[in-house]
Amino acid sequence: MTTYPQSVIKLINEFEKMPGIGQKTAERLACYILKQPLEEAMQLAYAIRDVKKVIKTCTTCFNVSESDPCHICSNTERDSSVICVVEQVADLLTIEKTCTYKGLYHVLQGHISPLEGVTPEFLTIGNLLQRIKEDHVKEVILATNLNMEGDTTALYIHKQLSPLGVCVTRLARGLPTGSYLEYASTAIVADAISGRNEMRYS
Amino acid sequence: MTTYPQSVIKLINEFEKMPGIGQKTAERLACYILKQPLEEAMQLAYAIRDVKKVIKTCTTCFNVSESDPCHICSNTERDSSVICVVEQVADLLTIEKTCTYKGLYHVLQGHISPLEGVTPEFLTIGNLLQRIKEDHVKEVILATNLNMEGDTTALYIHKQLSPLGVCVTRLARGLPTGSYLEYASTAIVADAISGRNEMRYS
Repeated sequence: MTTYPQSVIKLINEFEKMPGIGQKTAERLACYILKQPLEEAMQLAYAIRDVKKVIKTCTTCFNVSESDPCHICSNTERDSSVICVVEQVADLLTIEKTCTYKGLYHVLQGHISPLEGVTPEFLTIGNLLQRIKEDHVKEVILATNLNMEGDTTALYIHKQLSPLGVCVTRLARGLPTGSYLEYASTAIVADAISGRNEMRYS
Repeated sequence: MTTYPQSVIKLINEFEKMPGIGQKTAERLACYILKQPLEEAMQLAYAIRDVKKVIKTCTTCFNVSESDPCHICSNTERDSSVICVVEQVADLLTIEKTCTYKGLYHVLQGHISPLEGVTPEFLTIGNLLQRIKEDHVKEVILATNLNMEGDTTALYIHKQLSPLGVCVTRLARGLPTGSYLEYASTAIVADAISGRNEMRYS
Protein backbone atom coordinates (compact mmCIF):
# COMPACT_ATOMS: atom_id res chain seq x y z
CA MET A 1 0.00 0.00 0.00
CA THR A 2 1.26 3.45 -0.93
CA THR A 3 0.85 6.36 1.41
CA TYR A 4 2.13 9.92 1.28
CA PRO A 5 5.90 10.48 1.07
CA GLN A 6 7.67 10.87 4.43
CA SER A 7 7.92 14.66 4.33
CA VAL A 8 4.21 14.99 3.58
CA ILE A 9 3.34 12.67 6.48
CA LYS A 10 5.46 14.88 8.76
CA LEU A 11 3.52 17.94 7.57
CA ILE A 12 0.18 16.18 8.08
CA ASN A 13 1.25 15.25 11.63
CA GLU A 14 2.20 18.84 12.39
CA PHE A 15 -1.17 20.13 11.15
CA GLU A 16 -2.94 17.42 13.14
CA LYS A 17 -1.40 18.65 16.40
CA MET A 18 -3.38 21.87 16.07
CA PRO A 19 -6.70 22.27 17.87
CA GLY A 20 -9.76 21.17 15.91
CA ILE A 21 -7.70 19.69 13.06
CA GLY A 22 -8.36 15.98 12.50
CA GLN A 23 -6.63 13.49 10.20
CA LYS A 24 -8.76 14.34 7.14
CA THR A 25 -8.44 18.11 7.52
CA ALA A 26 -4.69 17.80 8.09
CA GLU A 27 -4.40 15.82 4.84
CA ARG A 28 -6.42 18.46 2.99
CA LEU A 29 -4.23 21.26 4.35
CA ALA A 30 -1.05 19.39 3.42
CA CYS A 31 -2.39 18.81 -0.11
CA TYR A 32 -3.11 22.54 -0.30
CA ILE A 33 0.51 23.30 0.61
CA LEU A 34 1.68 20.80 -2.03
CA LYS A 35 -0.40 22.50 -4.70
CA GLN A 36 0.67 26.05 -3.85
CA PRO A 37 3.59 27.70 -5.65
CA LEU A 38 6.76 27.67 -3.52
CA GLU A 39 6.63 31.37 -2.56
CA GLU A 40 2.94 31.19 -1.60
CA ALA A 41 3.43 28.16 0.63
CA MET A 42 6.49 29.63 2.28
CA GLN A 43 4.46 32.69 3.35
CA LEU A 44 2.84 30.53 6.02
CA ALA A 45 6.21 29.19 7.19
CA TYR A 46 7.59 32.74 7.33
CA ALA A 47 4.53 34.01 9.21
CA ILE A 48 5.00 31.34 11.87
CA ARG A 49 8.71 32.17 12.18
CA ASP A 50 8.03 35.92 12.40
CA VAL A 51 5.35 35.55 15.04
CA LYS A 52 7.62 33.44 17.20
CA LYS A 53 10.45 35.92 16.73
CA VAL A 54 8.54 39.14 17.33
CA ILE A 55 5.72 38.36 19.74
CA LYS A 56 6.34 38.66 23.47
CA THR A 57 4.10 37.95 26.41
CA CYS A 58 3.50 41.07 28.50
CA THR A 59 5.08 40.38 31.91
CA THR A 60 2.36 42.48 33.57
CA CYS A 61 -0.91 41.23 32.11
CA PHE A 62 0.21 38.24 29.95
CA ASN A 63 -1.36 39.67 26.81
CA VAL A 64 0.59 39.01 23.60
CA SER A 65 2.26 42.03 22.06
CA GLU A 66 5.27 43.16 20.09
CA SER A 67 6.35 45.20 23.16
CA ASP A 68 6.64 44.51 26.90
CA PRO A 69 4.74 46.01 28.69
CA CYS A 70 2.06 45.60 26.05
CA HIS A 71 0.29 48.47 24.30
CA ILE A 72 -2.66 48.21 26.71
CA CYS A 73 -0.60 48.22 29.92
CA SER A 74 1.54 51.09 28.64
CA ASN A 75 -1.45 53.18 27.51
CA THR A 76 -1.71 55.92 30.17
CA GLU A 77 -5.20 56.85 28.99
CA ARG A 78 -6.63 53.59 30.24
CA ASP A 79 -8.09 53.28 33.73
CA SER A 80 -5.49 51.37 35.75
CA SER A 81 -7.82 51.02 38.75
CA VAL A 82 -9.88 48.32 37.01
CA ILE A 83 -8.54 44.93 35.91
CA CYS A 84 -10.59 42.60 33.73
CA VAL A 85 -9.52 38.97 34.19
CA VAL A 86 -9.89 36.76 31.12
CA GLU A 87 -8.92 33.17 30.36
CA GLN A 88 -7.08 33.83 27.11
CA VAL A 89 -5.94 36.53 24.71
CA ALA A 90 -8.85 35.82 22.33
CA ASP A 91 -11.27 36.75 25.13
CA LEU A 92 -9.40 40.02 25.72
CA LEU A 93 -9.83 40.90 22.06
CA THR A 94 -13.51 40.00 22.15
CA ILE A 95 -13.99 42.50 24.98
CA GLU A 96 -11.87 45.12 23.19
CA LYS A 97 -14.14 44.80 20.14
CA THR A 98 -17.09 46.05 22.19
CA CYS A 99 -15.27 49.40 22.73
CA THR A 100 -16.99 49.67 26.12
CA TYR A 101 -14.13 48.83 28.46
CA LYS A 102 -11.28 51.22 29.17
CA GLY A 103 -9.50 49.46 32.05
CA LEU A 104 -6.59 47.02 32.03
CA TYR A 105 -6.59 43.24 31.61
CA HIS A 106 -5.08 40.16 33.13
CA VAL A 107 -4.81 36.99 31.02
CA LEU A 108 -4.92 33.82 33.14
CA GLN A 109 -3.58 31.61 30.32
CA GLY A 110 -6.28 29.01 30.88
CA HIS A 111 -8.85 27.96 33.47
CA ILE A 112 -8.79 25.69 36.49
CA SER A 113 -9.58 22.15 35.34
CA PRO A 114 -8.44 19.33 37.64
CA LEU A 115 -9.50 16.75 35.03
CA GLU A 116 -7.04 18.21 32.52
CA GLY A 117 -4.42 18.55 35.27
CA VAL A 118 -4.67 22.36 35.33
CA THR A 119 -4.42 23.48 38.96
CA PRO A 120 -4.30 27.18 39.96
CA GLU A 121 -0.47 27.18 39.99
CA PHE A 122 -0.46 26.74 36.20
CA LEU A 123 -2.34 30.00 35.77
CA THR A 124 -1.13 33.57 36.32
CA ILE A 125 -3.26 34.01 39.45
CA GLY A 126 -0.20 34.68 41.65
CA ASN A 127 0.83 37.55 39.37
CA LEU A 128 -2.72 38.92 39.47
CA LEU A 129 -2.70 39.02 43.30
CA GLN A 130 0.68 40.75 43.21
CA ARG A 131 -0.62 43.39 40.78
CA ILE A 132 -3.69 44.10 42.93
CA LYS A 133 -1.56 44.51 46.05
CA GLU A 134 0.88 46.88 44.35
CA ASP A 135 -1.17 48.90 41.88
CA HIS A 136 -4.10 50.42 43.86
CA VAL A 137 -6.68 48.41 41.96
CA LYS A 138 -10.28 49.23 42.92
CA GLU A 139 -12.23 46.67 40.89
CA VAL A 140 -11.52 43.24 39.45
CA ILE A 141 -13.96 42.05 36.77
CA LEU A 142 -13.95 38.27 36.50
CA ALA A 143 -14.62 37.69 32.80
CA THR A 144 -13.88 33.96 32.66
CA ASN A 145 -16.26 31.86 30.58
CA LEU A 146 -19.76 31.19 31.90
CA ASN A 147 -19.26 27.43 32.04
CA MET A 148 -18.13 25.08 34.80
CA GLU A 149 -14.40 25.70 34.40
CA GLY A 150 -14.86 29.46 34.09
CA ASP A 151 -17.11 29.58 37.15
CA THR A 152 -14.71 27.43 39.18
CA THR A 153 -11.82 29.69 38.23
CA ALA A 154 -13.82 32.83 39.09
CA LEU A 155 -14.85 31.36 42.44
CA TYR A 156 -11.26 30.43 43.26
CA ILE A 157 -9.93 33.89 42.38
CA HIS A 158 -12.75 35.52 44.34
CA LYS A 159 -11.68 33.60 47.44
CA GLN A 160 -8.06 34.56 46.96
CA LEU A 161 -9.04 38.21 46.63
CA SER A 162 -11.23 38.41 49.73
CA PRO A 163 -8.38 39.38 52.15
CA LEU A 164 -7.42 42.26 49.82
CA GLY A 165 -10.78 44.02 50.14
CA VAL A 166 -10.97 44.84 46.42
CA CYS A 167 -14.36 45.03 44.70
CA VAL A 168 -14.87 41.88 42.63
CA THR A 169 -17.49 41.68 39.87
CA ARG A 170 -18.57 38.97 37.43
CA LEU A 171 -19.96 39.35 33.90
CA ALA A 172 -23.77 39.53 33.82
CA ARG A 173 -25.65 36.29 33.16
CA GLY A 174 -28.93 36.38 31.30
CA LEU A 175 -30.64 35.90 27.98
CA PRO A 176 -28.51 36.87 24.98
CA THR A 177 -29.81 39.85 22.99
CA GLY A 178 -31.87 38.70 20.02
CA SER A 179 -32.82 35.38 21.58
CA TYR A 180 -36.26 33.84 22.10
CA LEU A 181 -37.43 32.71 25.54
CA GLU A 182 -39.03 29.67 23.91
CA TYR A 183 -35.69 28.25 22.83
CA ALA A 184 -33.54 29.25 25.83
CA SER A 185 -32.43 26.55 28.26
CA THR A 186 -33.84 26.42 31.79
CA ALA A 187 -30.51 27.44 33.31
CA ILE A 188 -30.33 30.56 31.15
CA VAL A 189 -33.91 31.59 31.92
CA ALA A 190 -33.34 30.96 35.64
CA ASP A 191 -30.25 33.20 35.49
CA ALA A 192 -32.25 35.87 33.67
CA ILE A 193 -35.02 35.80 36.31
CA SER A 194 -32.73 35.88 39.34
CA GLY A 195 -30.66 38.67 37.79
CA ARG A 196 -33.65 40.74 36.64
CA ASN A 197 -33.27 44.53 36.64
CA GLU A 198 -35.82 47.13 37.68
CA MET A 199 -37.11 49.26 34.83
CA ARG A 200 -37.16 52.76 36.19
CA TYR A 201 -39.60 55.52 35.12
CA SER A 202 -37.65 58.24 33.46
CA MET B 1 -9.90 49.21 19.83
CA THR B 2 -7.02 46.77 20.23
CA THR B 3 -6.57 43.92 17.81
CA TYR B 4 -3.81 41.38 17.36
CA PRO B 5 -0.26 42.64 16.70
CA GLN B 6 0.68 42.97 13.03
CA SER B 7 2.68 39.73 12.82
CA VAL B 8 -0.20 37.75 14.34
CA ILE B 9 -2.66 39.26 11.85
CA LYS B 10 -0.31 38.17 9.04
CA LEU B 11 -0.29 34.62 10.42
CA ILE B 12 -4.10 34.60 10.76
CA ASN B 13 -4.39 35.74 7.13
CA GLU B 14 -2.06 32.96 5.98
CA PHE B 15 -4.10 30.32 7.83
CA GLU B 16 -7.31 31.79 6.45
CA LYS B 17 -6.12 31.24 2.87
CA MET B 18 -6.26 27.48 3.43
CA PRO B 19 -9.35 25.48 2.37
CA GLY B 20 -12.05 25.18 5.02
CA ILE B 21 -10.33 27.57 7.42
CA GLY B 22 -12.48 30.58 8.33
CA GLN B 23 -11.64 33.70 10.33
CA LYS B 24 -12.40 32.14 13.73
CA THR B 25 -10.47 28.93 13.08
CA ALA B 26 -7.52 30.91 11.72
CA GLU B 27 -7.47 32.97 14.94
CA ARG B 28 -7.57 29.80 17.03
CA LEU B 29 -4.70 28.25 15.06
CA ALA B 30 -2.63 31.45 15.38
CA CYS B 31 -3.27 31.50 19.15
CA TYR B 32 -2.12 27.89 19.29
CA ILE B 33 1.13 28.85 17.55
CA LEU B 34 1.56 31.73 20.02
CA LYS B 35 1.15 29.40 22.99
CA GLN B 36 3.53 26.72 21.72
CA PRO B 37 7.20 26.71 22.73
CA LEU B 38 9.43 28.10 19.97
CA GLU B 39 10.83 24.73 18.86
CA GLU B 40 7.37 23.12 18.74
CA ALA B 41 5.88 25.92 16.62
CA MET B 42 8.83 25.94 14.26
CA GLN B 43 8.26 22.24 13.50
CA LEU B 44 5.28 23.25 11.36
CA ALA B 45 7.29 25.93 9.56
CA TYR B 46 10.11 23.43 8.92
CA ALA B 47 7.65 20.77 7.71
CA ILE B 48 6.23 23.21 5.14
CA ARG B 49 9.73 24.18 3.99
CA ASP B 50 10.84 20.53 3.73
CA VAL B 51 7.77 19.48 1.77
CA LYS B 52 8.28 22.27 -0.74
CA LYS B 53 11.97 21.39 -1.02
CA VAL B 54 11.68 17.62 -1.35
CA ILE B 55 8.37 16.85 -3.03
CA LYS B 56 8.25 16.58 -6.78
CA THR B 57 5.37 15.94 -9.14
CA CYS B 58 5.86 12.73 -11.13
CA THR B 59 6.16 13.78 -14.78
CA THR B 60 4.46 10.53 -15.86
CA CYS B 61 1.38 10.25 -13.63
CA PHE B 62 1.39 13.59 -11.71
CA ASN B 63 1.40 11.85 -8.33
CA VAL B 64 3.44 13.61 -5.63
CA SER B 65 6.61 11.83 -4.62
CA GLU B 66 10.15 12.37 -3.42
CA SER B 67 11.36 10.85 -6.70
CA ASP B 68 10.50 11.26 -10.39
CA PRO B 69 9.18 8.91 -11.76
CA CYS B 70 7.25 8.27 -8.54
CA HIS B 71 7.46 5.05 -6.51
CA ILE B 72 4.30 3.72 -8.18
CA CYS B 73 5.36 4.39 -11.77
CA SER B 74 8.83 2.94 -11.09
CA ASN B 75 7.46 -0.18 -9.37
CA THR B 76 7.95 -2.94 -11.95
CA GLU B 77 5.64 -5.28 -10.04
CA ARG B 78 2.63 -3.15 -10.84
CA ASP B 79 0.48 -3.85 -13.90
CA SER B 80 1.39 -1.14 -16.41
CA SER B 81 -1.41 -2.14 -18.78
CA VAL B 82 -4.06 -0.54 -16.53
CA ILE B 83 -4.28 3.15 -15.69
CA CYS B 84 -6.65 4.45 -13.05
CA VAL B 85 -7.52 8.11 -13.66
CA VAL B 86 -8.21 10.16 -10.51
CA GLU B 87 -8.90 13.84 -9.90
CA GLN B 88 -6.32 14.37 -7.17
CA VAL B 89 -3.56 12.70 -5.16
CA ALA B 90 -5.87 12.20 -2.16
CA ASP B 91 -8.11 10.02 -4.36
CA LEU B 92 -5.13 7.95 -5.46
CA LEU B 93 -4.28 7.26 -1.81
CA THR B 94 -7.89 6.37 -1.04
CA ILE B 95 -7.75 3.71 -3.74
CA GLU B 96 -4.33 2.51 -2.55
CA LYS B 97 -5.77 2.00 0.94
CA THR B 98 -8.16 -0.62 -0.42
CA CYS B 99 -5.17 -2.79 -1.44
CA THR B 100 -7.24 -4.11 -4.37
CA TYR B 101 -5.66 -2.23 -7.25
CA LYS B 102 -2.26 -3.09 -8.68
CA GLY B 103 -2.15 -0.98 -11.82
CA LEU B 104 -0.79 2.52 -12.40
CA TYR B 105 -2.46 5.91 -11.91
CA HIS B 106 -2.93 9.20 -13.65
CA VAL B 107 -3.71 12.30 -11.58
CA LEU B 108 -5.75 14.88 -13.53
CA GLN B 109 -5.04 17.67 -11.03
CA GLY B 110 -8.68 18.70 -10.91
CA HIS B 111 -11.92 18.24 -12.80
CA ILE B 112 -13.58 20.01 -15.71
CA SER B 113 -15.66 22.86 -14.33
CA PRO B 114 -16.48 25.67 -16.76
CA LEU B 115 -18.06 27.68 -13.92
CA GLU B 116 -14.73 27.75 -12.07
CA GLY B 117 -12.93 28.41 -15.35
CA VAL B 118 -11.35 24.94 -15.44
CA THR B 119 -11.39 23.75 -19.05
CA PRO B 120 -9.77 20.46 -20.18
CA GLU B 121 -6.49 22.22 -21.05
CA PHE B 122 -5.87 22.94 -17.36
CA LEU B 123 -5.87 19.22 -16.59
CA THR B 124 -3.29 16.57 -17.50
CA ILE B 125 -5.58 14.93 -20.07
CA GLY B 126 -3.11 15.56 -22.92
CA ASN B 127 -0.40 13.69 -21.01
CA LEU B 128 -2.82 10.84 -20.36
CA LEU B 129 -3.56 10.43 -24.08
CA GLN B 130 0.17 10.49 -24.79
CA ARG B 131 0.79 7.75 -22.21
CA ILE B 132 -1.96 5.53 -23.62
CA LYS B 133 -0.61 5.88 -27.14
CA GLU B 134 2.94 5.05 -26.12
CA ASP B 135 2.66 2.53 -23.30
CA HIS B 136 0.42 -0.32 -24.59
CA VAL B 137 -2.33 0.40 -22.10
CA LYS B 138 -5.25 -2.04 -22.22
CA GLU B 139 -7.68 -0.51 -19.73
CA VAL B 140 -8.36 2.98 -18.41
CA ILE B 141 -10.44 3.12 -15.23
CA LEU B 142 -12.14 6.51 -14.86
CA ALA B 143 -12.21 7.03 -11.09
CA THR B 144 -13.27 10.65 -11.04
CA ASN B 145 -15.84 11.62 -8.42
CA LEU B 146 -19.43 10.48 -8.88
CA ASN B 147 -20.80 14.01 -9.04
CA MET B 148 -21.52 16.38 -11.93
CA GLU B 149 -17.93 17.58 -12.41
CA GLY B 150 -16.52 14.07 -12.09
CA ASP B 151 -19.05 12.67 -14.55
CA THR B 152 -18.42 15.50 -17.03
CA THR B 153 -14.68 14.90 -16.81
CA ALA B 154 -15.12 11.14 -17.27
CA LEU B 155 -17.40 11.69 -20.26
CA TYR B 156 -14.93 14.09 -21.86
CA ILE B 157 -11.98 11.72 -21.40
CA HIS B 158 -14.06 8.81 -22.70
CA LYS B 159 -14.71 10.74 -25.92
CA GLN B 160 -11.03 11.59 -26.32
CA LEU B 161 -10.10 7.94 -25.85
CA SER B 162 -12.55 6.50 -28.40
CA PRO B 163 -10.16 6.75 -31.40
CA LEU B 164 -7.49 4.83 -29.42
CA GLY B 165 -9.65 1.72 -28.99
CA VAL B 166 -8.61 1.22 -25.37
CA CYS B 167 -11.08 -0.36 -22.91
CA VAL B 168 -12.55 2.37 -20.70
CA THR B 169 -14.32 1.57 -17.41
CA ARG B 170 -15.98 3.69 -14.74
CA LEU B 171 -16.24 3.02 -10.99
CA ALA B 172 -19.41 1.12 -10.04
CA ARG B 173 -22.38 3.18 -8.89
CA GLY B 174 -24.76 1.78 -6.30
CA LEU B 175 -25.75 1.71 -2.68
CA PRO B 176 -22.83 2.09 -0.28
CA THR B 177 -22.13 -0.97 1.89
CA GLY B 178 -23.77 -0.63 5.29
CA SER B 179 -26.48 1.74 4.06
CA TYR B 180 -30.26 1.47 4.38
CA LEU B 181 -32.52 1.63 1.33
CA GLU B 182 -34.98 3.73 3.37
CA TYR B 183 -32.52 6.61 3.68
CA ALA B 184 -30.88 6.46 0.26
CA SER B 185 -31.69 9.13 -2.31
CA THR B 186 -33.72 8.31 -5.41
CA ALA B 187 -30.70 8.80 -7.70
CA ILE B 188 -28.65 6.28 -5.69
CA VAL B 189 -31.41 3.67 -5.65
CA ALA B 190 -32.00 4.19 -9.40
CA ASP B 191 -28.27 3.60 -10.01
CA ALA B 192 -28.36 0.49 -7.84
CA ILE B 193 -31.32 -0.92 -9.78
CA SER B 194 -29.99 -0.21 -13.26
CA GLY B 195 -26.58 -1.62 -12.29
CA ARG B 196 -27.95 -4.71 -10.53
CA ASN B 197 -25.86 -7.89 -10.70
CA GLU B 198 -27.08 -11.43 -11.16
CA MET B 199 -26.60 -13.66 -8.14
CA ARG B 200 -25.35 -16.93 -9.53
CA TYR B 201 -25.99 -20.36 -8.00
CA SER B 202 -22.69 -21.75 -6.87
